[in-house]
Amino acid sequence: MAPQAEMLLFAAARAQLVAEVITPALRRGRCVVCDRYVDASLAYQGVGRGLGIEIVRHVNAVATGGLAPDLTLLLDIAVATGLRRARAESGTGPLAALGETPLGVRGSGDRMEQQGLAFHERVREGFLELAQNEPRRIRVIDARGSVAAVQREIERVVDVFLRGRERGPGGEGSR
Amino acid sequence: MAPQAEMLLFAAARAQLVAEVITPALRRGRCVVCDRYVDASLAYQGVGRGLGIEIVRHVNAVATGGLAPDLTLLLDIAVATGLRRARAESGTGPLAALGETPLGVRGSGDRMEQQGLAFHERVREGFLELAQNEPRRIRVIDARGSVAAVQREIERVVDVFLRGRERGPGGEGSR
Repeated sequence: MAPQAEMLLFAAARAQLVAEVITPALRRGRCVVCDRYVDASLAYQGVGRGLGIEIVRHVNAVATGGLAPDLTLLLDIAVATGLRRARAESGTGPLAALGETPLGVRGSGDRMEQQGLAFHERVREGFLELAQNEPRRIRVIDARGSVAAVQREIERVVDVFLRGRERGPGGEGSR
Repeated sequence: MAPQAEMLLFAAARAQLVAEVITPALRRGRCVVCDRYVDASLAYQGVGRGLGIEIVRHVNAVATGGLAPDLTLLLDIAVATGLRRARAESGTGPLAALGETPLGVRGSGDRMEQQGLAFHERVREGFLELAQNEPRRIRVIDARGSVAAVQREIERVVDVFLRGRERGPGGEGSR
């Protein structure tokens, strides 16, 4: 598939998600938790596929009408470790959790595996650069620990964020 | 479906078409004839759905890498006549030839039919405005006549265009 087509399909799915699910929920005053959003396209298609972050950002602004999260959690881990975890649980959700099927994981050849690794290294660097540029919105969570440890760290960060919002519109993390 | 999602799906399909079919054919020196391209999205999604021409143009520039036709033929006819023709041949290709299923044709209620007509009126105006802005590239063909008459007119316009190209890069219609 052409990288542009892939990026536009993700944007189309996101446009429908915003119109059908997220916006109605926000209008009802709900708090929306979303697994992957625009940042994922910036990292995977913009950096990983090499389309460029600004092009992907512009298309996604059309898709979402500019709707952006107040808080984004980036679960960061070394690519090899992440792929190994995904492989250990393959067939269930974890491959999807990587944003797409990492070819290097399912392929048997070394060359494919190397390509997969290089691609995912670029994606990781893309995510980390996004986090560096928006440190207040994007919090990097160290995902090397156990599920329980990662969960505790997420709870801590979300708790700080929500308390900041309770302090009112001027509080950290609000907009 | 959200208008943005519809527009992005058409753009995704177009990106794949350009990458997989059109660009390879052009590289082999072929002449590519395409039923609907960016102009259709500008008219249907930009004007008809009200997304705005510039937003749709920008997204499609990403999808196509800016690849544009040398000659575009706009077969123009009154909306009611066009829908009547489509209805007369429904089930085969003509509905697709209208770019999408005109709700007013298949629906039974008058209100739906009126909505369909208003939508298609906007689309027609959008196409005609595009033609007005790019009169050298977009030639309006009067589609009121018989199939044979429309075919003759198309052959005449294409013939003039091709002879212009034979005169070299400075000729009419070349780029």
